Amino acid sequence: MTKKSFSIIGGDLRSIKLANLLIEDDNKVKIFGFENAGFDLGIAESDSLFDAINQTDIVIGPIPFSNDNENLNAPFSKNPIPIYDVFSNIKDNQLLIAGVISKKIAQISKEYNVCSIDLLNREEMAILNAIPTAEGAIKIAIEETPTTLHNSNVLVLGFGRIGKTLARMLKGIGANVYVEARKYSDLAWIQSSGYIPVPLDDLANYLPRMNIIFNTIPHVILNYDLLYRIDRDCLIIDLASKPGGVDFEKARELGLNTIWALSLPGKIAPVTAAKFIKDTIYNIIEELGG
Amino acid sequence: MTKKSFSIIGGDLRSIKLANLLIEDDNKVKIFGFENAGFDLGIAESDSLFDAINQTDIVIGPIPFSNDNENLNAPFSKNPIPIYDVFSNIKDNQLLIAGVISKKIAQISKEYNVCSIDLLNREEMAILNAIPTAEGAIKIAIEETPTTLHNSNVLVLGFGRIGKTLARMLKGIGANVYVEARKYSDLAWIQSSGYIPVPLDDLANYLPRMNIIFNTIPHVILNYDLLYRIDRDCLIIDLASKPGGVDFEKARELGLNTIWALSLPGKIAPVTAAKFIKDTIYNIIEELGG
Amino acid sequence: MTKKSFSIIGGDLRSIKLANLLIEDDNKVKIFGFENAGFDLGIAESDSLFDAINQTDIVIGPIPFSNDNENLNAPFSKNPIPIYDVFSNIKDNQLLIAGVISKKIAQISKEYNVCSIDLLNREEMAILNAIPTAEGAIKIAIEETPTTLHNSNVLVLGFGRIGKTLARMLKGIGANVYVEARKYSDLAWIQSSGYIPVPLDDLANYLPRMNIIFNTIPHVILNYDLLYRIDRDCLIIDLASKPGGVDFEKARELGLNTIWALSLPGKIAPVTAAKFIKDTIYNIIEELGG
Amino acid sequence: MTKKSFSIIGGDLRSIKLANLLIEDDNKVKIFGFENAGFDLGIAESDSLFDAINQTDIVIGPIPFSNDNENLNAPFSKNPIPIYDVFSNIKDNQLLIAGVISKKIAQISKEYNVCSIDLLNREEMAILNAIPTAEGAIKIAIEETPTTLHNSNVLVLGFGRIGKTLARMLKGIGANVYVEARKYSDLAWIQSSGYIPVPLDDLANYLPRMNIIFNTIPHVILNYDLLYRIDRDCLIIDLASKPGGVDFEKARELGLNTIWALSLPGKIAPVTAAKFIKDTIYNIIEELGG
Repeated sequence: MTKKSFSIIGGDLRSIKLANLLIEDDNKVKIFGFENAGFDLGIAESDSLFDAINQTDIVIGPIPFSNDNENLNAPFSKNPIPIYDVFSNIKDNQLLIAGVISKKIAQISKEYNVCSIDLLNREEMAILNAIPTAEGAIKIAIEETPTTLHNSNVLVLGFGRIGKTLARMLKGIGANVYVEARKYSDLAWIQSSGYIPVPLDDLANYLPRMNIIFNTIPHVILNYDLLYRIDRDCLIIDLASKPGGVDFEKARELGLNTIWALSLPGKIAPVTAAKFIKDTIYNIIEELGG
Repeated sequence: MTKKSFSIIGGDLRSIKLANLLIEDDNKVKIFGFENAGFDLGIAESDSLFDAINQTDIVIGPIPFSNDNENLNAPFSKNPIPIYDVFSNIKDNQLLIAGVISKKIAQISKEYNVCSIDLLNREEMAILNAIPTAEGAIKIAIEETPTTLHNSNVLVLGFGRIGKTLARMLKGIGANVYVEARKYSDLAWIQSSGYIPVPLDDLANYLPRMNIIFNTIPHVILNYDLLYRIDRDCLIIDLASKPGGVDFEKARELGLNTIWALSLPGKIAPVTAAKFIKDTIYNIIEELGG
Repeated sequence: MTKKSFSIIGGDLRSIKLANLLIEDDNKVKIFGFENAGFDLGIAESDSLFDAINQTDIVIGPIPFSNDNENLNAPFSKNPIPIYDVFSNIKDNQLLIAGVISKKIAQISKEYNVCSIDLLNREEMAILNAIPTAEGAIKIAIEETPTTLHNSNVLVLGFGRIGKTLARMLKGIGANVYVEARKYSDLAWIQSSGYIPVPLDDLANYLPRMNIIFNTIPHVILNYDLLYRIDRDCLIIDLASKPGGVDFEKARELGLNTIWALSLPGKIAPVTAAKFIKDTIYNIIEELGG
Repeated sequence: MTKKSFSIIGGDLRSIKLANLLIEDDNKVKIFGFENAGFDLGIAESDSLFDAINQTDIVIGPIPFSNDNENLNAPFSKNPIPIYDVFSNIKDNQLLIAGVISKKIAQISKEYNVCSIDLLNREEMAILNAIPTAEGAIKIAIEETPTTLHNSNVLVLGFGRIGKTLARMLKGIGANVYVEARKYSDLAWIQSSGYIPVPLDDLANYLPRMNIIFNTIPHVILNYDLLYRIDRDCLIIDLASKPGGVDFEKARELGLNTIWALSLPGKIAPVTAAKFIKDTIYNIIEELGG
């Protein structure tokens, strides 16, 4: 890959780490929106949004791009950065890469004739992000239970990216790993991988003897009827994005300890997350012809 | 094993959990020294130390037995429980089992003609306790670094009980595991187990590229000359009992992030630790003829 | 699942084991085509093809169903069993399950109005069959090299069912596992799983230091240019079905040791393979409404 | 380590590989006793035993040194090489390193004032040799059973070097691993390592459901009473040196399939075994002051 020039506009710690990583690889990087970071960025900020964006190959926005569809997600910025200001500074020959680009933002991007790519649509990024998510879940499990993970009965609901990654690590620590899935093919992979397969139809029978349940399915799977069967000492860690996989109100009524842990990669491992973003950006550039 | 009767005197959460586990196995249990526990013990306390100890087979003391060689280690007790009171109530035909019985206490035990056994001298107990210690170390590592353990370079100093257990779990999570040892036979085991062997003589050369260092050796191995070679972003977690394995003052001078984590089993997994104590007590009874 | 009645017609050792497993589960089983098996079948054969097929719920044919599209694949049968005889005995309300049903056979099945299901189209069956395939490959690798797998550089070409299963086992034995893939998402999974990812574009650079190469890709990937880079002492084991992944002629010219290992499940683990067939048949029945 | 000069006298394929490895490391090597090897040795033989031994630092003999206490173990030698000829050529300042030096040979060594070191007394060598032994055992298990190792119940008798190494690999392939031991501390390690601990006292209860039993204990543990409880389809692989751990006659009477597999490292992985010998020789030199 030939070296590129990047504008990094807004975002959290990951964006700053990303800037540093890109510089380490001998790319040119300009940044904007980190005045209040409160620590040494290792790189000087551009004087204005215009300066930061002007004449670079690629503009990198935050993850998520915006929390309100009006201003950029820029927690370290002194002043709000209106989305329209960003788009109006990007030229035709520049590429915008960011995470969670909402429909409305995508629409605006189109209006401004800006080619934008959503990082979270990149399969490899989602796969790699499951690693810090799984480690965060393990940290919570160790912290919040009076037992070891080793030799505990742990159940993972769902065998997607997070489910696969988490199950592997839990087994690596020495837990007795059960994994729930619906499809015969997933159940075959679960068996082949050395976990105990739990068909969805059979879930109720397995619940009573579980010590920790990790949910990765983003719709309510643990309803009252299933929650009712879970041991009072069991910890439930929900890793699924909204609406989550647990009927939280019923869980509270039943006295079950439930933790909803979201956005773990940025919290648990911002440096590693930045590395994954960098790798994915390089892949995008490679696909576009280097 | 025939059922026994136990007196559980003082101690922390582990002692209470132990009482419950022994009852679940249909043993008779009397307890004393938990008035201020502040939660349901699941069992009634004896009215007096005399009552609690009278006529049982085995008296179980806390871990450690005493912090000052005067009173029993009994954090949940309303009043101090003098060691002499404990010993004067134990009869010849009773057995005392506790943890960390100091030389002075052992001497007193002898004077009172009480047969006492130190749990921490039991090899199987020490081996099992390495499990919660390793999990606690992993929790700290996930918590305190901005990177994932997965794909990090982690170095374990020492290949004893904690070193072996921790290395296995770290590999299970996906770290690149280096293990330092001195003996050729340990280095052979390290290689055979799939870790990267680091001979003590070569340690200095490996240090610069480590992301996390776990020490398990209970004497200062990381002196100034070695600390000097460690990267500023590296986290050092010292799991060794006093004096620890790090020259903490020099580490601070060099700006190295060092965490000295002690007594993890009781903090991280009191219920599992209680289970290990129970198993070890059963082994002792078995060895003494059931 | 309610108990069913089965006809097992032709096939190798797996078919006989399957019959025994179905009987163990209290199903009714009739068999035909094993007169020359030469060992105790544990079950009496039907007198005729008609008797064997008459009045059962499900007819199970061999894997593959036929080698010549004329007669059933029935290596233990005294006389050839023409395919037409089989179909003419199957009634509308019976189901035919077999493996590798060719287009021509599928056509005949249609003509006879017989509902037939190909086991090898079942994803779960293919996933599970990768287990004995991987073990067979490992056996060959241990046998045919003067080195241990432990600490060897082994390369798996392809990250499909066999690639995933084989890589996991090789790592479990202690090999340094490299996996080649083309897609970024597969490369992310390879990294996440703890193997060394080898992008197809980079393959040539990795080849010289490999000790064993396992191919799982069913088209010629190792052409002359790549074979040329492989060490003379490297063993190549090709697990891919025709045409295989190696230019065998060029490999021979270059003096490379190449083994093409096909149909391993039936050879390496007929009993386990029969178990997988049984499980898959039960899944089919379940899907059809029990 | 400063470079040394070596004489390699007699031995099998491992000795030739060792010669090549030592040359690769820029040592000087002379060899004798391989006239009938029948393949290119990659190094010229010395004209006489005298020439081969003369003026080198270290003389390396075969493993075992001798089969009859008269001649050197030299399967590739045209003529017998009497032990006395070897010793009479070794000078005071030379070191003799070989494997399995019998008491009688040790006595002769003393008479000739030759300092000799037995490789098999080196702990690191025994630990590393357990790797090819375990792989050989796995190869036999895959070959000789009609089931996969994956998901099989396998029992390892003994938790020494071979037991530990084999259990790890079996788990890595996906077997359900049971390990028998006598000591509480070993049972604790077995549990901690993620295997199912089987106390010797309980062995009889576990035997009936085992699919494969690997013995590593060098005295008869599987006597009639225990053999009697083993399933007819179970395979027993005995890896222990004489007298082995199985009452072979009783096993045959009971129709049990028993394989006694000895000296696996030299058979399964002579090149790797040679590498381990080299590493051990370097350790010896290091210990003696380089």
